Amino acid sequence: MSENLNSVKEAMLFTQRVAQLSKALWKAIEKDWQQWIKPYNLNINEHHILWIAYHLKGASISDVAKFGVMHVSTAFNFSKKLEERGLLRFSKKENDKRNTYIELTDKGVELLLEIVRVFDSSKNSVYLGAQPLKELYGKFPDMMEMMAIVKNIYGDDFMNIFEKSFANLEHEFTDVNGFLEKIEHQEKEPIQ
Amino acid sequence: MSENLNSVKEAMLFTQRVAQLSKALWKAIEKDWQQWIKPYNLNINEHHILWIAYHLKGASISDVAKFGVMHVSTAFNFSKKLEERGLLRFSKKENDKRNTYIELTDKGVELLLEIVRVFDSSKNSVYLGAQPLKELYGKFPDMMEMMAIVKNIYGDDFMNIFEKSFANLEHEFTDVNGFLEKIEHQEKEPIQ
Repeated sequence: MSENLNSVKEAMLFTQRVAQLSKALWKAIEKDWQQWIKPYNLNINEHHILWIAYHLKGASISDVAKFGVMHVSTAFNFSKKLEERGLLRFSKKENDKRNTYIELTDKGVELLLEIVRVFDSSKNSVYLGAQPLKELYGKFPDMMEMMAIVKNIYGDDFMNIFEKSFANLEHEFTDVNGFLEKIEHQEKEPIQ
Repeated sequence: MSENLNSVKEAMLFTQRVAQLSKALWKAIEKDWQQWIKPYNLNINEHHILWIAYHLKGASISDVAKFGVMHVSTAFNFSKKLEERGLLRFSKKENDKRNTYIELTDKGVELLLEIVRVFDSSKNSVYLGAQPLKELYGKFPDMMEMMAIVKNIYGDDFMNIFEKSFANLEHEFTDVNGFLEKIEHQEKEPIQ
């Protein structure tokens, strides 16, 4: 009984601690994210959809929903709005007629890269909040515990898509001239 | 120029990584939290207000807003609703006539403790997601990097209130009989 209560206590303390930290962290991130994309008349879900479609070089609505952590109907409805603004188009893949895919239009890619270009770390709470850790350890924190928990909740697929988008972003930023050129004059890769 | 672009790249990768992890983590927590308190007809902000008022043994509306990461008007409006349900009362402190304080009524304390009692870790994603870490290290992860970032964003006051509520919770859970007794027959500490 005592042992049982102790483990209830431990579970309760741990989950409430993570819940409240997570709420606080997300609220700060949400505010910064909204401020960042506000001039482009996008909400977080819309920007997230553009981001996912871009980094996956086209994505199914269910990929968008899964990786963007939103309902399929939300993913679909916001994708429709982005289509109406000419930022993405819907398509079917030759080898997968069941799923609807989205891919960015040139206008969508331009907008996404423009948003990357105006990113200002000096206004980003997480960037500023992590500075003391960076100074202490010489690099940004890995957030390995947070990653592990998210991986265990959402599964390997989620983490694969997650890592793919960051590997892609890292790759594009590696070649400075290539990246700048990409910003100036974006070439789209065709969806197949 | 190249160095500048590299640091933009690093900042961008880091902040987007944390943003997307944080979104995913918070969405899972939000869902569990809502499910947990749904039978009691409370939303997350209302439960958070009860939690803060209880652990601080009475709290000002601005403390609630700060620690609960909500607007002052949100904190006030939801507190009003909780007052209408007889779960808390508004008061002024003798030594601080400017601020409005809230304290739980007996009914509010009973409800909060009832909610603690029905907490079921087997339905909690963060608890389940942290199990592999617990098995590996023998304890739940400390989430120190996340704590440090939140601390740097929200300041020492925030962390003090945060730690106070957990120290309080830990203390109450220490004496098993005392805690059970408290659940059975709660004695309220008067606000001063």
